[in-house]
Amino acid sequence: MRTGIATVCLSGTLEEKLRAAAKAGFGGVEIFETDLVTSPLSPEDVRRLADDLGLGLDLYQPFRDFDSVPDELYRANLRRAEAKFKLMGRLGIDTILVCSNVATASIDDDALRSAQLHGLAELAADHGVKVAYEALAWGTYVNDFEHAWRIVDDANHPNLGTCLDTFHILSRGWDTAPIEGIPGEKIFFVQVADAPKLSLDVLSWSRHYRVFPGEGQFDLPKFLGHVARTGYSGPVSLEVFNDTFRQSDVERTAVDAMRSLIWLEERTAQHLAASAAEAAGGAPSPAQLAQASRAYAMPLTTLPQVAPPSGLNFAEIKAADGGAATAELERLLGQLGFEPRGEHRTKPVSLWTLGDARIVLNRQQARGVEPGISALGFDVENSVAAVARAVQLKAVPVARTSQANEEVLQAVQAPDGTEVFLCQDALWVEEFGSVAPGGSPLGGAPESAEVARIDHINLAQPWQHYDEAVLFYSSVLALSPQPSQDVSSPAGLVRSQVMQTEDRSVRLALNLAPWVQADSVRGTVRDTFQEHIAIIVPDLVATAKACRARELPFLAIPENYYEDLDARYGLDPEFLATLRELDLLYDRDADGEFLHFYTATVGSVFFEVVQRIGGYDGFGAPNAPIRHAVQHAHRR
Amino acid sequence: MRTGIATVCLSGTLEEKLRAAAKAGFGGVEIFETDLVTSPLSPEDVRRLADDLGLGLDLYQPFRDFDSVPDELYRANLRRAEAKFKLMGRLGIDTILVCSNVATASIDDDALRSAQLHGLAELAADHGVKVAYEALAWGTYVNDFEHAWRIVDDANHPNLGTCLDTFHILSRGWDTAPIEGIPGEKIFFVQVADAPKLSLDVLSWSRHYRVFPGEGQFDLPKFLGHVARTGYSGPVSLEVFNDTFRQSDVERTAVDAMRSLIWLEERTAQHLAASAAEAAGGAPSPAQLAQASRAYAMPLTTLPQVAPPSGLNFAEIKAADGGAATAELERLLGQLGFEPRGEHRTKPVSLWTLGDARIVLNRQQARGVEPGISALGFDVENSVAAVARAVQLKAVPVARTSQANEEVLQAVQAPDGTEVFLCQDALWVEEFGSVAPGGSPLGGAPESAEVARIDHINLAQPWQHYDEAVLFYSSVLALSPQPSQDVSSPAGLVRSQVMQTEDRSVRLALNLAPWVQADSVRGTVRDTFQEHIAIIVPDLVATAKACRARELPFLAIPENYYEDLDARYGLDPEFLATLRELDLLYDRDADGEFLHFYTATVGSVFFEVVQRIGGYDGFGAPNAPIRHAVQHAHRR
Repeated sequence: MRTGIATVCLSGTLEEKLRAAAKAGFGGVEIFETDLVTSPLSPEDVRRLADDLGLGLDLYQPFRDFDSVPDELYRANLRRAEAKFKLMGRLGIDTILVCSNVATASIDDDALRSAQLHGLAELAADHGVKVAYEALAWGTYVNDFEHAWRIVDDANHPNLGTCLDTFHILSRGWDTAPIEGIPGEKIFFVQVADAPKLSLDVLSWSRHYRVFPGEGQFDLPKFLGHVARTGYSGPVSLEVFNDTFRQSDVERTAVDAMRSLIWLEERTAQHLAASAAEAAGGAPSPAQLAQASRAYAMPLTTLPQVAPPSGLNFAEIKAADGGAATAELERLLGQLGFEPRGEHRTKPVSLWTLGDARIVLNRQQARGVEPGISALGFDVENSVAAVARAVQLKAVPVARTSQANEEVLQAVQAPDGTEVFLCQDALWVEEFGSVAPGGSPLGGAPESAEVARIDHINLAQPWQHYDEAVLFYSSVLALSPQPSQDVSSPAGLVRSQVMQTEDRSVRLALNLAPWVQADSVRGTVRDTFQEHIAIIVPDLVATAKACRARELPFLAIPENYYEDLDARYGLDPEFLATLRELDLLYDRDADGEFLHFYTATVGSVFFEVVQRIGGYDGFGAPNAPIRHAVQHAHRR
Repeated sequence: MRTGIATVCLSGTLEEKLRAAAKAGFGGVEIFETDLVTSPLSPEDVRRLADDLGLGLDLYQPFRDFDSVPDELYRANLRRAEAKFKLMGRLGIDTILVCSNVATASIDDDALRSAQLHGLAELAADHGVKVAYEALAWGTYVNDFEHAWRIVDDANHPNLGTCLDTFHILSRGWDTAPIEGIPGEKIFFVQVADAPKLSLDVLSWSRHYRVFPGEGQFDLPKFLGHVARTGYSGPVSLEVFNDTFRQSDVERTAVDAMRSLIWLEERTAQHLAASAAEAAGGAPSPAQLAQASRAYAMPLTTLPQVAPPSGLNFAEIKAADGGAATAELERLLGQLGFEPRGEHRTKPVSLWTLGDARIVLNRQQARGVEPGISALGFDVENSVAAVARAVQLKAVPVARTSQANEEVLQAVQAPDGTEVFLCQDALWVEEFGSVAPGGSPLGGAPESAEVARIDHINLAQPWQHYDEAVLFYSSVLALSPQPSQDVSSPAGLVRSQVMQTEDRSVRLALNLAPWVQADSVRGTVRDTFQEHIAIIVPDLVATAKACRARELPFLAIPENYYEDLDARYGLDPEFLATLRELDLLYDRDADGEFLHFYTATVGSVFFEVVQRIGGYDGFGAPNAPIRHAVQHAHRR
C-alpha cells in the first residue's frame, strides 16, 4: 500500500514536515496549500527536496468553493484553478483535491455541477492534471460521497475522479458498502483519519479532534476493505487535523502517523481474510491472511502475528545508588512483604519478589533524580516475533549492555520513554544471587506470597503523547483500549485510559495528568507524574494487617470517606471499622467488590495492594479523587 | 446580592478553596460533596474555618438519583439522605441540592415524584434541612425547570423548594419568562454559570466548558432579572465546571469568579432599568439604574458608570537600560519614523512619537530580560471613576512612584500582568524633555506623522488566564468581545480574540498561543509570547518606501504568498509588483481593503503598520499564518 500524509498533520515548516515524513518512511505527501504559501521554498525547491528525500508529491489540496456557482463566478474560479494547475506543474504534482462548495454555492443543480466539473477537468487536462472531487461532510449541497460520485460519473471525463475521505464519510454515518460500486480507477485519492465519537458539530469535530487510525473509534479496516475491493491502487494518505499533533514534535508525530497506517494495513488484511473465511464458514488461517494481503491491486503489508501478552513479567524502578529515596523504596518494598532476591551478577540492580510479582530495582540512575517506573516486562509467546513486530511498527529498540552468559532481553521504547521488555520466560532471574545468609533482613515470607502478582500498572503520560501511547500499546502489544474516564483531583481533571487483554492478565492504566504551570496551583508539576504498581492478593485485610505490623506507611484516608461510604452502602459496622482502622478503600460494581490500599509515595512511585471479590472488573475509580487529594496534600 | 461559589469551581484542597473564596469577598460557598469527602477536615473543622473566615456555608450538594424509583430503592435513598442531613447538622448547612434522577429513575410518574419528594422533605424537616430540587438538563424524566417546579408545587411542603441553575435552563433553550411565575420564597437556591455556545452534547458541555458570567454567551442579566422580580433574596452562587479553572491558581480563579458576579449584578440592574424605561418609552437614566438596583428583595450593587475608552493614549515597552536589544528597539522605532521626544525628568524612560501614536520606552527592566509590552494607556473621560470601577471589579491597582509636580497616573493590572493606565489627558508628556539639539538623530519627521496613531495592540495571553482576560477587558474597560478565530502556525493553532469599542477607537487582540513543551517543536516557547503594536497610516505604500529608505528590517514575505494572492484576487500587476517589492500583505472584505507590513522582532515585540481602505474592519487574519511561519523560521 502506498502510504501518504498531508503536511497539515504535522507541526513546523514545510521543510521540517517533508524531512520528518521521509524519515518516518512515508511514500508520499499531500501538500497543504497554506504550508506552501507560508514557505520560503519555491515550488522548484520543494520538488527537488522531495526528490532528494525519495518522497512522492501525491496531491495538492485543497481547492475550495468551485462548484454550484453562477457563470461569472465559475469563470473566475477557472482562472483561479489555472494558476494552481501551473503551480502544480512546477511542483510536479498531478492530482488536485477539489472539495464540495461550502462558501459560495448558490445553485443546487447536479447537471450544472457536472458541467462545471467537466469544464474544470478539460482545463486540468491541458495542464496534465487530474481532479479528485470530494464531498465535505458539511458541504452546502454535496455532503455525501455517493452524491459526489454520481456527479463525477455524469461528468464523465478522464481527468475527473473522486476522493474518498473516511472522516467525511464516517462522521456522517453513511453506509460504506456502496464504495464497492465505484470503479477503482475513478477513485483518484483516498484520505484516512480516525476520530473519537463526539456529539460535536461535524466541522469543529473535524478541525480539532481527528486522530490517526487506531486512536479513535471509526471502523477503518472495513472502509479500506471496500476500497481494496474496488481495485484501487493509489495512495492511502492521512489527513488529520488535530490541535495536539500541530503542537507536538514533528518527527515523533510522523512516526506515530506511520505506525497508524501500518496498523491499518494489517487490520484491513485481517478484515478481508475474516470476510472471506466467514463466507466459507470459518475463522481465517494465516495462509488466508497472507492471501488477503496480496489479493488486491493495493497490496497490504502484514506483520508477525502475536497473541496478547499473558502476564506482567516484572516492573522496574530506576533509582540512584545509595540515595535516601532509594533506601526508602527498599524499606517500603520490605514493609509490603517483598523479599530481596539478591543482586545482579554484574550490574547495580536488585530483584524483589512477592509471590509472582517481581520488581527490579535498578540503581543506575543519577543522584538527585527521583525514583520512577522505568521498564515493564510483558510475558509473550515468542519474544523474537514480538520484537520484530514492534520494530516494524516503528518502535525504537532499546540497547542494553549484556555480558556473555546473560539472558539477552528484547525491549523497545514506549512513547513516554518507558522500556517495554518482551519476555518469553523469566530465566533472567537466575542472574540474581540468592538472598544473603540469614534470609531477608526485613521480615519473613509474606502471608500471601504464593499467589500475589502484579494486578495493574498505572503510568502517567505527557499530554502530547497520549493518543500515540494508546496506539502504541494496542498495535505493538495487542492491548485493547477501554472507554476513557475523567477523575477529579485538586490539580485538575485526570483522564484515565485503561488498556488491557481480554482475559485481564495484563491491565495497564494510562493517566493523562493535568499540566500545572509554575505560577499555578501550589501542588506543582510533580503532582502530575505519580505512577504506581498495584499488587493483587487473596486476602487484603490479612495483608494490610501484616503490612501495618511491619510499619508500612499507608496513605491515610480521611474519616469523611468512611462516613460517605456508610451513607452509600450501609456496610456492616464491623467491616466498616476494619476498613477505617486499616485505611482501606472499598468499591462495588454489579459483579463484585474491590478492596484496596495505597502506600506513601517515594520519588514519583507508590504502590497499591488490591483484592478483587467476585467478578469486579474495575480499578476503584470512585476512590481515585480521595487518593489524588491526599497525595496532593502530602506534596505541599 | 448575596454572592456564592461552589467549591467545585476551584482547584486545590477544601481548605485552600474556602480561604480563596473568603479572600475574594464571597458571602458564602456551596460545599461540593467530593471536596468534603476527600478532606482531612472534619465537618466541625470546616464549620469553624468558615466561621473564622466570615464565609457562609449556603448549600450542600449534590444529592443525586433520588426520585422516580421503586419503593425499596426509595427507602434506601431516604436512609442515604438521612446520613447527609446529619452531616449537614454538623456542618451547619441548612439547604441541600437534590437534582433530578439520571441513573436509577425507572418510573415516570409526577405524582410519585411529588410524593417521594414530600417524604424527603418530611425527613429533612426533622433535621432542620430544606430541600432544593433541580432539573438537570439531562435528567431522565425531569429536565425542564418548569416541570421541576410543578412537582415541587404539587408536593406542597414548606421544606421543599426548587433550585434554578442557568446552565440547565439556558443550555436547553428553555423560555425563562415562566420563572416569574414561581414565588420567590419557593426558590431555595440560584446557581449561575455562563458558557460558550457549543453544539456539543449537553453533559460534556456542562462538565468541561462552563465559564464564569461574562465569559460566555448566555443572556444571564435577563435570567437574573426574572429571578429578582420573583422577590428572591437568597444567594446567587457560581457553579462552574471548567477544565482550566480546575487547573489554575485557586486565588486568581476566585477573584475572576467574584468579578464575574459583580459584573452580573451591574448588568442585571441595567437590564431591569432598561426594561422599566422601555415600558415608559425611553432609555434608562442613572436615577432609574440606581432605582433598579434597590427595587428588589435581592439588592444589586452597581459600579461607577464609564463610557468605553476613546483611544489608546500610549503603549509602553519595557527594556533593559543600555542593552543590545534596547538599542535595536530604538533603531527600529527611528526606522519606522518615530521621533524621540526626550527623556523623562526623573526616570530612565524615553518617549517616542509618530503622529498621535506614543510609545514609551521604559529602560528599568533587568539585564537579560527581553523587551516586551508592559503597559497600555487608554483614554477615558474620568480617570478617577474608571479606576474606582476597576478596583471594585477586583483589579489590583499598580503602585508607581511619582515625584512632586509629576502627573499621577492611575493604573491597574490586567490578568497577564500588563499595566492598564486610565488616562484623562496626555499632560504626562510634558515631563519629557524636548529632543536634543540637532533634532532627531534618526531622520526627519515622517511623511504621515500628522495622522498616524495606534490601530491596535496584540497581546499574547497565557492559556490559563484567557477567559479571565476577556472578562477583565469587557467589565473594567467596556470593550466588546468579538467571535474568536483560530489561526494556524508552525507551532500549533493560535486562538485570537478581538476586544474592541463599537466605534473602533480601541482595538485589542488577545492571542491564546499554543504552549510548546521543552522537548517539543524546535520553535521553542519563545514563539508563543510575541506581541505587537500596530500603527495605522493614511498611505501605507509611501510609509513603507520611507521605512525601506531608512533600512527598516521588514519581515520578509515568501514569493509563494504573492502568487497565491494573484490567483485569489487577480490583482493589477503593477500593484502586485509594489506589494512584492515592499513585503506588503493584502486582504479584502466586503467593505474594503487592508494593506499591512510587519517588522522584525526584538525581544518579544514587533511592530505592524496598517492602512484601512474603505470600511475594512478586520486585522488581515488570512495573512496571519504567513507571519507566524516567517517568525517561526527566524526564531530557529
